[in-house]
Amino acid sequence: MRVLPCKGLSLTNLDDQLLLPGTKGLPLRDTLRQGAIALQAWNVLRADTSFPVAVLKESALLHNLAWMRDFCERHGATLAPHGKTTMSPQLFAAQLANGAWGITLASATQVQVAHRFNVRRVLLANQLVARTDIEAVLALLHDDPDFECFVLADSLEGVARLSQAVRARGLARPLPVLVELGIEGKRAGCRSLDEALQVARAIAHADGLALAGIEGYEGLLVTKDPDEDIRAVNAFLAKLVELVKTADAEGLFGHPEILLSAGGSSYFDLVARGFSAVGELSRPMRAVLRSGCYLTSDHGSYKRLLAQLDARASHGEGLRPALEVWSMVQSRPEPGLAILTMGKRDASYDEALPIPVYTHRPGSDNGDPSELPPGCEIVKMNDQHAYLRLPEGVIRDALMVGDLVGCGISHPCTTFDKWQVLLVVDDAYSVTQAVNTLF
Amino acid sequence: MRVLPCKGLSLTNLDDQLLLPGTKGLPLRDTLRQGAIALQAWNVLRADTSFPVAVLKESALLHNLAWMRDFCERHGATLAPHGKTTMSPQLFAAQLANGAWGITLASATQVQVAHRFNVRRVLLANQLVARTDIEAVLALLHDDPDFECFVLADSLEGVARLSQAVRARGLARPLPVLVELGIEGKRAGCRSLDEALQVARAIAHADGLALAGIEGYEGLLVTKDPDEDIRAVNAFLAKLVELVKTADAEGLFGHPEILLSAGGSSYFDLVARGFSAVGELSRPMRAVLRSGCYLTSDHGSYKRLLAQLDARASHGEGLRPALEVWSMVQSRPEPGLAILTMGKRDASYDEALPIPVYTHRPGSDNGDPSELPPGCEIVKMNDQHAYLRLPEGVIRDALMVGDLVGCGISHPCTTFDKWQVLLVVDDAYSVTQAVNTLF
Repeated sequence: MRVLPCKGLSLTNLDDQLLLPGTKGLPLRDTLRQGAIALQAWNVLRADTSFPVAVLKESALLHNLAWMRDFCERHGATLAPHGKTTMSPQLFAAQLANGAWGITLASATQVQVAHRFNVRRVLLANQLVARTDIEAVLALLHDDPDFECFVLADSLEGVARLSQAVRARGLARPLPVLVELGIEGKRAGCRSLDEALQVARAIAHADGLALAGIEGYEGLLVTKDPDEDIRAVNAFLAKLVELVKTADAEGLFGHPEILLSAGGSSYFDLVARGFSAVGELSRPMRAVLRSGCYLTSDHGSYKRLLAQLDARASHGEGLRPALEVWSMVQSRPEPGLAILTMGKRDASYDEALPIPVYTHRPGSDNGDPSELPPGCEIVKMNDQHAYLRLPEGVIRDALMVGDLVGCGISHPCTTFDKWQVLLVVDDAYSVTQAVNTLF
Repeated sequence: MRVLPCKGLSLTNLDDQLLLPGTKGLPLRDTLRQGAIALQAWNVLRADTSFPVAVLKESALLHNLAWMRDFCERHGATLAPHGKTTMSPQLFAAQLANGAWGITLASATQVQVAHRFNVRRVLLANQLVARTDIEAVLALLHDDPDFECFVLADSLEGVARLSQAVRARGLARPLPVLVELGIEGKRAGCRSLDEALQVARAIAHADGLALAGIEGYEGLLVTKDPDEDIRAVNAFLAKLVELVKTADAEGLFGHPEILLSAGGSSYFDLVARGFSAVGELSRPMRAVLRSGCYLTSDHGSYKRLLAQLDARASHGEGLRPALEVWSMVQSRPEPGLAILTMGKRDASYDEALPIPVYTHRPGSDNGDPSELPPGCEIVKMNDQHAYLRLPEGVIRDALMVGDLVGCGISHPCTTFDKWQVLLVVDDAYSVTQAVNTLF
């Protein structure tokens, strides 16, 4: 029944867990073994689920998994997709089964979740500073010799904290650390090559640590101006390349491979191209892309950015939006206003409000969802409600109390974190599988 | 060990559940019985937890519970606090043990969660329209004759859907329904008294339904102008009063008590006062306030609105902010910038960004958190990071990598939904209890 591959990971206990009544999106009146979801023959368009419900389109997921595998193969890049996007063991498994080398994560508790579901290699693309958080990661590395976890540092204080904890733990192997190169005015990361080299030297000389690579995040440079972005991203990539070469010339790297990592979900094509300029180093180099949002794309900001990527890279059909939130019209209080059973608890609102795409009247003859009349727009959300404005001239019956509305979203990360269970659907919106998140 | 009262509710299974490594905020390396959390002697200022961590200040919670109980007693108002704010069984229990008559909720799955934890009376302050959602609520009412659930309607379609479902279910008692009166240009609810009366008549005459009251939500009128708000809220309350009197004069109510309900967390004093103007009806009336955010208040928008309420109502000390998110400085990449281990996944950002209030250096002699230098401000958040700007002239050592920052938040609802476990702390930030959310 399961369509997403999950070879090699033990997800059995998720299939065996009992879903309880009250699980958002699920029409449960009694407990249900998760693995039996496909047997329920639920269909979203028939309004068999509870509303709102978050759905993942199986065909789009499979398309995107294959697209990215192909992209990385053609560019000689390694994929460690950012798992913080979905925090879903089943989706991690699908990514690993489709060529991902490891999973990128953002915090110690996220690493613990991934390890629990048998992810064997993690790039913790963040500074790890809290004592208990460092200890939690070191405990996994200590107790599980086959588990690998890379972490970042961007300060001498950070290096000292890591080194001290590794010594206290008595870890048998060095902790692999990447130096983060940052961008003036942006987030973490050393602001200059000199600063970065200082941190790299400190790692190289610290007890219990090994310099394993260089990391940066060009996604912080995304603006509304693609030409300016491309210029800034390429300049940043050149700095990363210079740093890796300089550190290598100094003989600072102490890991069998040198990792060079960047790549959010907007400009990973530039990263793949930029990193190919490194040339020969003293040991093998691995270019690691960390895109998380390629998996579902979206109907908003990533749709726009990925269309630009597609125009640059031209790989046939681009990535498809795979994540939708379906809700029901609960009120039509004014001719131009429909209130939906969906709010800030259910769909992203940080980059843009949800984008209403489809509508369907359950019980109607038509099995396919219709497109909403042009001009329909979600103009506001409260915690549990969305305000859908209809353009003038749309007849009242076009959207009635009890009709379904299917919304695309902008920014997958902030929709995934609003659901503990998402439903995978086929093209007819029949539910084939449940996917869990663990935020 | 548990300081929040939870008389009468069976929360034992939450105490017995095993918390797993990877639970955000918790420093777990092995499973831990939730009920044993107080025995761990964790202290947030000592950095014993994982970071970020969400904490509830026990003394502030207890103060706010008593404050609201006292407020309602003095105003002859009934409290059915909005449970969607916290979705926390332990906090529901504390509210019910402190005089709440029931819990208000926003969706069928939320009702199922509350019922699972033995909440006996729910005001579902929303239109209930999806077939499976109506059936889920009716199943609870059918199988548990002592459970009460009120729902809203604002359209004839909505009334028809409810009535049909009740007949199909063969419910032995009528489903109590309140008519929602809305506000032009705002959310759900009938736009005029005439429309509302039409819906009220439909409920009164529908098979299986009973008109139980009138509901409105004055919180939609909150603007930046308190004088204008007060005028608009009072005008809306007058309409609600007129509607309840008219419907009663027509003999439409069919429930032993008439519920008249409004009251978010900004103007519930006006609601309590406005509803006392109803006078004699044909049967007992109950004025139901639904504030959810009184329980924790906040350091942002509700702090401001509740200070105004306090100035109007003058009840001694007002409500205290009880909810904080603590994170650690992970990077100090520029003199005026600190990056914190906390982002959009951890704290509200819809009304305003988090408000940095406290700092503490774990291991320092001082046991109390210090105030941050004036002018420190969180200016941006990514999914997993916050950008704290320090004003010019603050020495670099005032905030170092590894220092803790305690933030207040603005809008409790959108912080609670980012945590599955929050930690209750005493005034010294020692952890006394865990509180679960079920969103």
